[in-house]
Amino acid sequence: MPEFATAPISPMRITLDVAAATVDPAGPVLTRRMSDLEGLFADRTEWKRAVEDDADPVVYTVSSSPVPEIDRELPQSITTIRPGTCGGEFFMTKGHQHPNPQGEIYLGLSGVGGLLLFDGQRTEWIDMAPGVIGYIPPHWAHRSVNVGDEPYSFLAVYPGCAGHDYQWVLEHGMGARVMRAPSGYELVPFQR
Amino acid sequence: MPEFATAPISPMRITLDVAAATVDPAGPVLTRRMSDLEGLFADRTEWKRAVEDDADPVVYTVSSSPVPEIDRELPQSITTIRPGTCGGEFFMTKGHQHPNPQGEIYLGLSGVGGLLLFDGQRTEWIDMAPGVIGYIPPHWAHRSVNVGDEPYSFLAVYPGCAGHDYQWVLEHGMGARVMRAPSGYELVPFQR
Repeated sequence: MPEFATAPISPMRITLDVAAATVDPAGPVLTRRMSDLEGLFADRTEWKRAVEDDADPVVYTVSSSPVPEIDRELPQSITTIRPGTCGGEFFMTKGHQHPNPQGEIYLGLSGVGGLLLFDGQRTEWIDMAPGVIGYIPPHWAHRSVNVGDEPYSFLAVYPGCAGHDYQWVLEHGMGARVMRAPSGYELVPFQR
Repeated sequence: MPEFATAPISPMRITLDVAAATVDPAGPVLTRRMSDLEGLFADRTEWKRAVEDDADPVVYTVSSSPVPEIDRELPQSITTIRPGTCGGEFFMTKGHQHPNPQGEIYLGLSGVGGLLLFDGQRTEWIDMAPGVIGYIPPHWAHRSVNVGDEPYSFLAVYPGCAGHDYQWVLEHGMGARVMRAPSGYELVPFQR
């Protein structure tokens, strides 16, 4: 089978456990703690305090199915962001660009959150809830944010060839920050 | 923007209405009647009778989101297969191959059904229910079947570059047929 870079996989039945935010069978599981989000929250003093004095809390986890991140495959994962803030800024994912520009979908599973998108000039925000798809077109950096009081979980489906560029977000930001506000949340312009 | 064959689309919030099996905003909607499934059911006499004397019933519908079927986009649709049989063979989709081999996922939304896969030699069957992902690797033809008494709906997510080849299934079959049986359903070997 010379056309395959990796041995092809077989059809697969994958069960979503929304309550546990896991998939079965399970593939790689990522845990992102506050220390993994260095340089992303505006309030660096509060970020440092959380890392050093607040036991470096888990901010989010990513449970992937066994479908590999290679060309022609369509992997999936469940991301769960814990509720919380750092200096008034809601817990969020690192955010990334796809080095190979490919569309992606997020499907809300539980809790309430949002999808922040930035193409280098324009910023978009999509309110997420169970049964809502947030569509991420190619060329748009994307980050998820938990704006509620419960864990926010969503299913991601993305082409295996897309890749993940986290450095782009560190360099360019996401156009806005999502801050706690009397009405719930507000987007404020991004400033370094 | 010379890299785009079609003008890029903006981020989009798409709501799934599982009860109505629709998406909002809506894109193309397909309705497949019995007459559209010529040559697929084993019992041609019963198929002809249904078309001519049974008002050519709707077998399934496909409601797509507005995300276009073009390279780098990741379109989605909800397919709903009505309950029923034709000569003992359960209502099903036409089935297709992707001319450009790309993986696809089906996520069960309501009802019970199955995903029949065929790579030209091997046949696989995945029992589908709400919260179950059926993973379709590249190079596997795929067809959905309603084996229950209620409508069976699922969300499909697939790369916009994959395409649809229905002729392949007419020529090669799907390796098996899914027939009503005392226990519910059974797979019987495909014969022309």
